[in-house]
Amino acid sequence: MSSIIKNSILKMSAASLHTAAAATSAAPLATLDASKLQITKNPNPKTPLPNDQLVFGQTFTDHILKIQWNKTKGWDAPKIKPYGPISLDPSACVFHYAFELFEGLKAYRDSNDQLRIFRPNKNMERMNKSADRIVLPTFDSEELIKCIAELIKIDKHLVPKEKGYSLYLRPTLIGTTAGLGVGIPTDALLYVITSPVGPYYSTGFKAVKLEATDYAVRAWPGGVGDKKLGANYAPCIKPQLEAASRGYQQNLWLFGEEKYITEVGTMNVFFVFEDKATGKKELVTAPLDGTILEGVTRDSILELARARLNPEEWTVSERYYSIYEVEERAAKGELVEAFGSGTAAVVSPIKEIGFHGKDINVPLLPGQQFGALTAQVADWIAKIQYGEEEYKDWSYVVADLKE
Amino acid sequence: MSSIIKNSILKMSAASLHTAAAATSAAPLATLDASKLQITKNPNPKTPLPNDQLVFGQTFTDHILKIQWNKTKGWDAPKIKPYGPISLDPSACVFHYAFELFEGLKAYRDSNDQLRIFRPNKNMERMNKSADRIVLPTFDSEELIKCIAELIKIDKHLVPKEKGYSLYLRPTLIGTTAGLGVGIPTDALLYVITSPVGPYYSTGFKAVKLEATDYAVRAWPGGVGDKKLGANYAPCIKPQLEAASRGYQQNLWLFGEEKYITEVGTMNVFFVFEDKATGKKELVTAPLDGTILEGVTRDSILELARARLNPEEWTVSERYYSIYEVEERAAKGELVEAFGSGTAAVVSPIKEIGFHGKDINVPLLPGQQFGALTAQVADWIAKIQYGEEEYKDWSYVVADLKE
Repeated sequence: MSSIIKNSILKMSAASLHTAAAATSAAPLATLDASKLQITKNPNPKTPLPNDQLVFGQTFTDHILKIQWNKTKGWDAPKIKPYGPISLDPSACVFHYAFELFEGLKAYRDSNDQLRIFRPNKNMERMNKSADRIVLPTFDSEELIKCIAELIKIDKHLVPKEKGYSLYLRPTLIGTTAGLGVGIPTDALLYVITSPVGPYYSTGFKAVKLEATDYAVRAWPGGVGDKKLGANYAPCIKPQLEAASRGYQQNLWLFGEEKYITEVGTMNVFFVFEDKATGKKELVTAPLDGTILEGVTRDSILELARARLNPEEWTVSERYYSIYEVEERAAKGELVEAFGSGTAAVVSPIKEIGFHGKDINVPLLPGQQFGALTAQVADWIAKIQYGEEEYKDWSYVVADLKE
Repeated sequence: MSSIIKNSILKMSAASLHTAAAATSAAPLATLDASKLQITKNPNPKTPLPNDQLVFGQTFTDHILKIQWNKTKGWDAPKIKPYGPISLDPSACVFHYAFELFEGLKAYRDSNDQLRIFRPNKNMERMNKSADRIVLPTFDSEELIKCIAELIKIDKHLVPKEKGYSLYLRPTLIGTTAGLGVGIPTDALLYVITSPVGPYYSTGFKAVKLEATDYAVRAWPGGVGDKKLGANYAPCIKPQLEAASRGYQQNLWLFGEEKYITEVGTMNVFFVFEDKATGKKELVTAPLDGTILEGVTRDSILELARARLNPEEWTVSERYYSIYEVEERAAKGELVEAFGSGTAAVVSPIKEIGFHGKDINVPLLPGQQFGALTAQVADWIAKIQYGEEEYKDWSYVVADLKE
């Protein structure tokens, strides 16, 4: 076959066979190994900013974790180095074909000065799924978590104190192969940068207005909407601008003729309905059908809601539901509340949804910017994140900063 | 509104308002201006490789064209510099959210030593459409073409001689804003690199086998499949690997329940049917409905076919057609030929299509690797590209290398 596709951008299949051959006939590829970690300290450590000056993802800590991968060698030794620029050939495949994916998670300093990460195994699992989907290298999740723990420890002076503040962690994986053929990346760079961040809502919850969007589509069956790929983000900015021009902060992404509700902006979304006849309430979110990001916060909310809400009063559903259902139930007084969910805000209350020129009002508690369950869920998760409450292995202690 | 979304990744709408304000109240932004071009020559010019060693997109010329953009200043002076790495902050938005797009076009040396580009205005028009779709800056096409012409001239010693050989041009536009909020890029870099390339098929046409793919979907109405964004490429690699594992070189992308034929791999695709009853032939490709890349070669083939094929014998159609139609017409002996179209290969003949475990045989001329129209179209376009024939303004003379 290789002769057919020589000198061509159809050479993908040859590259595939090549990779397969390398994997079976050559020495086993090196795996990602935290014990090989090499650390070069930044000689100019930063002074922490006051908490009230922290802006999401705008300032970074002193160090970066970098791990190179090559298809014939596997994973190189992890390296922690002073934070600094990444230098790549202009033909690197990350610049042309979006070989890129990321994760977002947070480290929290608890009241005992222990450093904790919330469910990092879930993020690592998803990161590996994202990598597999665009044929970037996968890795041992536990080993990467160990390296990230070292990265956080070395920059512990920059992890903000005070509940609500945290260190945002951004693992990123990019294809770095130089050359313009559209093919499997032969080289990749996994890196992690960290940013001290404040609470999403610095003055308490602020409910947002959404525009239900059907002219643009975020994700589709057979696509990659369930993966945390760069490819899912840039195309969503223009629809967001259009929504903003009409006074809405975010898009509520609809799908299909049925106008199913899928996600909001870059978050998953939950609605609460109450059946007036029975008085029973339902917490609803869209099912993971391949078009919905497999949010860690989404998963955590579903599990806690199923464990903690009284089943006599509540149903927790992953099912299809449409903007028409929301419209109807609002009209009947059965729409109770709605919120987005994600790592950045945990929950983000919704107060209004514009759809085809009409506004659907979403109730909030009297005089508040949130609904009852929204606040409840935020509290459940914050308590686990900050170690005030242990729940299974969700809060992963990285380091004891008292030592 | 800005207070609502302070310190949040919902700050997009604020960014939007900010940009709008800057555009209306501040000094007008600088436009891309070729007259400001600054040139720094590479002190170590390369020796050209022999033509038979040229591999698509693997070697580059001595220089790179770079043009920085900033939202408050507009376009900086274009700069031609020695080819070298691009250095960006690890938080740059191109690495996380796929703020990236590109173009592909070629410069040809004709028999009079004139350097020509094929329809560069079409590529520039498409590049601006891609930029607008992901809120990267747009620019004056003519000015960029002038800068590209200077880039080619300065590296003219590396433009291969001989018909079939050319200089592949890769204009690229990336968002370079540092910071992890998902927002409108405030900084961008437009750059152009060039690569001497040989003919796509070094030993004449080689017809390819395609796997008709319905489990993965390349593009969707309301998506960005008609734009040349990086986001459209990485997700297509895994399905291509799967096709390759079953012996097919590329995917024939289907869409919807109807299993409409859309594109092949990274090319547009054409089929030729013959109505047995009337003897009339039809050249068919999918319509530009937002899911189909607006290929310059596709457009050129349609125009030349409409102008040059005898309308008594031929119909040229942009219409929906499905894999089922191809299957049926193949069974009736009405499938004449099929080919992909794109800048790299111009045309790429197809000999077989696998669909749900059965193979559809696509005829080739006896003893050949192509069909009659495939060869005819390739010849039409090559003659214009190499200046053997003038057709409208399609062949744009960049420089006279005799001077």
